[in-house]
Amino acid sequence: MFFKVVNVSEFYDLFQNFSPIETSTEVDSAKSLNRVVSEDIVAQEDFPPFDRACMDGFAVLSQDSYGASESNPVYLKVVGDVQIDKIPDFSIKSGECAKIVTGAPMPGGANAVVMVEYTEEVAPDEIEVSKSVSPFENVILTGEDFKKNDILVTKGVRIRPQEIGIFMEFGVIKCRVFDFIKVGIISTGNEIVSPDTKKLLPGQIRDVNSYVISSIVKINHAEPVFFGIIPDDRDALISAISKAVSNCHLVLISGGSSIGVKDLTEQAITSFKNSEILCHGVAISPGKPTLLASIDKTPVVGLPGQVTSAQIVMQILVAPLIRFLSNDKNYLSENYFPKTRARLTHNIPSKKGREDYVRVKLIEKKGELLAQPIFSKSGIIKSLIQANGLVRVPYISEGIVEDSVVDVFLL
Amino acid sequence: MFFKVVNVSEFYDLFQNFSPIETSTEVDSAKSLNRVVSEDIVAQEDFPPFDRACMDGFAVLSQDSYGASESNPVYLKVVGDVQIDKIPDFSIKSGECAKIVTGAPMPGGANAVVMVEYTEEVAPDEIEVSKSVSPFENVILTGEDFKKNDILVTKGVRIRPQEIGIFMEFGVIKCRVFDFIKVGIISTGNEIVSPDTKKLLPGQIRDVNSYVISSIVKINHAEPVFFGIIPDDRDALISAISKAVSNCHLVLISGGSSIGVKDLTEQAITSFKNSEILCHGVAISPGKPTLLASIDKTPVVGLPGQVTSAQIVMQILVAPLIRFLSNDKNYLSENYFPKTRARLTHNIPSKKGREDYVRVKLIEKKGELLAQPIFSKSGIIKSLIQANGLVRVPYISEGIVEDSVVDVFLL
Repeated sequence: MFFKVVNVSEFYDLFQNFSPIETSTEVDSAKSLNRVVSEDIVAQEDFPPFDRACMDGFAVLSQDSYGASESNPVYLKVVGDVQIDKIPDFSIKSGECAKIVTGAPMPGGANAVVMVEYTEEVAPDEIEVSKSVSPFENVILTGEDFKKNDILVTKGVRIRPQEIGIFMEFGVIKCRVFDFIKVGIISTGNEIVSPDTKKLLPGQIRDVNSYVISSIVKINHAEPVFFGIIPDDRDALISAISKAVSNCHLVLISGGSSIGVKDLTEQAITSFKNSEILCHGVAISPGKPTLLASIDKTPVVGLPGQVTSAQIVMQILVAPLIRFLSNDKNYLSENYFPKTRARLTHNIPSKKGREDYVRVKLIEKKGELLAQPIFSKSGIIKSLIQANGLVRVPYISEGIVEDSVVDVFLL
Repeated sequence: MFFKVVNVSEFYDLFQNFSPIETSTEVDSAKSLNRVVSEDIVAQEDFPPFDRACMDGFAVLSQDSYGASESNPVYLKVVGDVQIDKIPDFSIKSGECAKIVTGAPMPGGANAVVMVEYTEEVAPDEIEVSKSVSPFENVILTGEDFKKNDILVTKGVRIRPQEIGIFMEFGVIKCRVFDFIKVGIISTGNEIVSPDTKKLLPGQIRDVNSYVISSIVKINHAEPVFFGIIPDDRDALISAISKAVSNCHLVLISGGSSIGVKDLTEQAITSFKNSEILCHGVAISPGKPTLLASIDKTPVVGLPGQVTSAQIVMQILVAPLIRFLSNDKNYLSENYFPKTRARLTHNIPSKKGREDYVRVKLIEKKGELLAQPIFSKSGIIKSLIQANGLVRVPYISEGIVEDSVVDVFLL
């Protein structure tokens, strides 16, 4: 009934038919959160720029501390107090030490820091040390963290708070990032009207898919572009696709991809000269009627019309494609498929040979997390908002029995 | 050594000393992603507004199909073809059926839909039905999904793509949401200079924490407000805190909260008339020196100065507080603590009586996900960007042995 049906990992393999975006822009690093770095960013200096204490305590010559214990402490003369913001103008010799705080530069001669917890002041300028330290213990040496010319962040990495931190540490206040990809959204269906329609005529339904889809596009850091609600008319659809393909990096068509009474999407796509249907049908449920095509090397996805199916297809299949096209080299990273573990409250039946995604509601009961499957008719939109998770039933499984502890994908 | 040490769940309990934001704004629903709804949103009409097919096939009287099977099919006369955007102007009687597509309004008389897969056209106006359907099978009745006056989305829910979908379905094109909370950020330390400082003087370090912290604030949908880099001076710190407290819903002070050589944060806070230290010390590692106080009912958090510790405190302790203050009723939801499962490559040692968070790097090897602990000196910032996960070692544990399969919090 469907042609060119692929499984989920084969769908991901089809991404290689397309090229990720190559254009980039310079932005303020402070505002670069979630952007994808478009070139390796290199350290212009050693870090730390000087030997630093990484604990509060006393800078010492490690050999002075050897053998020190609570019952047999070592006594050292305190010859200075290191200010955090100045390189100390004194050195220490054997038998001496200097008070130091975390982050402060090490005084000359010292090669380790005894933590304050293992010291006691026994006189104004003398301490007792009750623990030995190895050379360089509690010290970060110049360049130990990063050396000049080390790569700080590689091309294709999406910027997290921690990458922004590294940029700032090295004074990288501007960075180049790939541009946002534009994702064209076409909604089809004679029955679909704009959400601002006050009173529906008989048979009309407001457009939901465009907004759910565009929100998922935004969450994946791409720019949605609307191409309107198109009636079930071949020429109108062709014209909308043509506009979208020439202006966008990816085109999503909602509705019309199910092999039902009116399958116009495939006809419209194949009417383009440089078009190819890469798959029509993905072995997942819901979401089977998903279509992936190429028009002039631009990917075009036909999404199922049911919003509940469309949402799952967006999360599982299209979001990775958006990240791939955005030049995010970790587009399939575990970090994009956040999960939790929960105990199933009911059996989930399934069929072998497809991947099922079942909506669940997570409930905490007596300190345990339970996943309650939401079984409802296809097309019941309440299940959209009741659910905060999805349980995947793998290809080879005929279902999952209640009380099993399962991974729940967070919605 | 620390006073008022609390564990993580006691820290969360302390949130009750504060009041979430109450001011709200009306926004376009299409742009309301990630905002928190400030009032219950109610259905103004039934949904669906008419009895709808939820499968492609034939609308029938269910009793006509009883007993139908492949070996013993039932024959029905096709009397019409339902258009998706019009209420059908005909009814069907026993022995009759009408072609129908998903989403289309049911014709009068019909009470179920036989999926197209279980039918065959045997003549231009006759089909064979090989499966029986129950009353209302593959049909969504008027108001079955939502009835007029049902609550669509309750106050305190953070808006996801699916909530936007529901709003659109009901023509709710505007909605009221709580305002963003303002989070004041104060960075302290004589050694700290602005990231745009080209050449560091001896002992200087560029400000990293303000930017890591503000990025995590943004991820949690709040507005960071910078109050500058304040030297280690009691009066300067008091003046900055005073400004921040009167302009923000939460104040974060980075540096100065460890009981080291210069603990000014606590002194500065307690110098305020209406101040209270709620805890100083949380039983987690890293992050123990964290401080939570109240000044004029505004929460003030003292963060550890080490950026690696500050990041973990932000994720585990402060992010939930930001969500609480933003009036997100699910501020501790599992959905905010995304995880995956991986096998540990090395032992993780720990001490009983504190919760340890150990940075790990996730690696896929032969189809299995491995978590490789990153052990490095305190203060090594490279570990920040190498890690994409955290493994928690619970209070009661002395560590986790290698080869254990563990939850990894995604960073």
